[in-house]
Amino acid sequence: MTVPRTTQGFASGHVRFVGAGPGDPELLTLAALRALETAEVILHDRLISTDILALAGPAAQLTETGKTGFGQAMKQDDINARIVAAAQSGARVVRLKSGDATVFGRLDEEIEACDAAGISWSIVPGITAASAAVAAIGQSLTRRGRNSAVRLITGHDVEGYADHDWAVLARPGEVAAIYMGLRAARFLQGRLIMHGADRATPVTLVANASRPDQQVLATTLDRLTDDLARAELSGPVLTLFGLAPRTAEILLPALDKERA
Amino acid sequence: MTVPRTTQGFASGHVRFVGAGPGDPELLTLAALRALETAEVILHDRLISTDILALAGPAAQLTETGKTGFGQAMKQDDINARIVAAAQSGARVVRLKSGDATVFGRLDEEIEACDAAGISWSIVPGITAASAAVAAIGQSLTRRGRNSAVRLITGHDVEGYADHDWAVLARPGEVAAIYMGLRAARFLQGRLIMHGADRATPVTLVANASRPDQQVLATTLDRLTDDLARAELSGPVLTLFGLAPRTAEILLPALDKERA
Repeated sequence: MTVPRTTQGFASGHVRFVGAGPGDPELLTLAALRALETAEVILHDRLISTDILALAGPAAQLTETGKTGFGQAMKQDDINARIVAAAQSGARVVRLKSGDATVFGRLDEEIEACDAAGISWSIVPGITAASAAVAAIGQSLTRRGRNSAVRLITGHDVEGYADHDWAVLARPGEVAAIYMGLRAARFLQGRLIMHGADRATPVTLVANASRPDQQVLATTLDRLTDDLARAELSGPVLTLFGLAPRTAEILLPALDKERA
Repeated sequence: MTVPRTTQGFASGHVRFVGAGPGDPELLTLAALRALETAEVILHDRLISTDILALAGPAAQLTETGKTGFGQAMKQDDINARIVAAAQSGARVVRLKSGDATVFGRLDEEIEACDAAGISWSIVPGITAASAAVAAIGQSLTRRGRNSAVRLITGHDVEGYADHDWAVLARPGEVAAIYMGLRAARFLQGRLIMHGADRATPVTLVANASRPDQQVLATTLDRLTDDLARAELSGPVLTLFGLAPRTAEILLPALDKERA
């Protein structure tokens, strides 16, 4: 038996879970583009940009699930039922998710619904927001001599983080990419400082990574919540703990003026 | 001042660090494809597949740096010097790296060489091996109620991992993607068991994720080294700690026969 590869055949009644990347259509994979062009039904997160949806085939039926990239509006059960019904009608179905469907994408529930209904499925990986955000500030998620591991963390669950998680993260040189870190920022700041993190540790927030309305806020652990309150970031935010933008050019212009 | 986006203009003398993804050309981004088509000089890792190199423009000068995806043959200084020289000659330069250049890609040294020489550069993110490997086994790197964080770890440095890193990783429900985990497997197994990890924790190794010669070995922490010794995986291996393949179909055929 051969191992199925990610991008093989797309038959009637098949569901393809496709990562749409962070927003720039240029950051779609070729496999994602082909899936969009071929699909008869596309069920997409609310955050998927119109530029990307425009790449769907002319006959494709597009439905917004109301689910956002880092959050949720519609009930998961309803999304599952829609996916299954579309596949059972014989359509080639694309379930289009922001970023990489395997990272904070609620993918498992949808796969399990397909399995329960006997529907075949496959996953096309996408560029996750952490990759796009770190590329935008000219940094790496890992660096020899600095960090040999990087954590991808959801800000939703950060309050459930245990003391030893914070202690590990508070050490010099640690890097973490925190999805939806905006609401969790004050909690994050308090815990990390309590566990001994250097207050001068760089923290960079990237809103709408790779999109025309991308915003970058470079701050420190110490100034994080104060700077956030003034910066008025909007859209999905990726928080890069332990990294500063490499070039001085990439700073939030409004904030620079305030500081000047 | 506007924030530069990842995929904007590619001028003469500019260096673009491009993630080539895990190997399947379908997992290139559109931005990566355009960069390959436009570049006059392409300096690429040894592991980049011929299918991907074939997408370069007809006039492009291709040079293999000898550097592998997860390791290194050529001296980093020599690679830096080649990148800088190519850009100084006025070429549009693509530095093509396996996976995502920002994850275990030695990107910083090359960027710093460009900065020192006054050369402009940009980063095009790619699909990292962890995303491709987890997609191949039908799983997610994160799952609500199981793990709200995932670690990407390099197997090269795993011997420098501290006790509390192991203790955190040994807890139920933790997931880690370990790059180049093959040589580190015995050490990893010993430390995790010593720190109380359940011996029945699933561990899945994916060699050559997304390529025609992809191999999947599904095992447990307890059986890891024994199964590895028999499986003869070759090529770059991504070890998924805490995850088993979702479908029984995706198992290494040779090993299944041995066990039968």
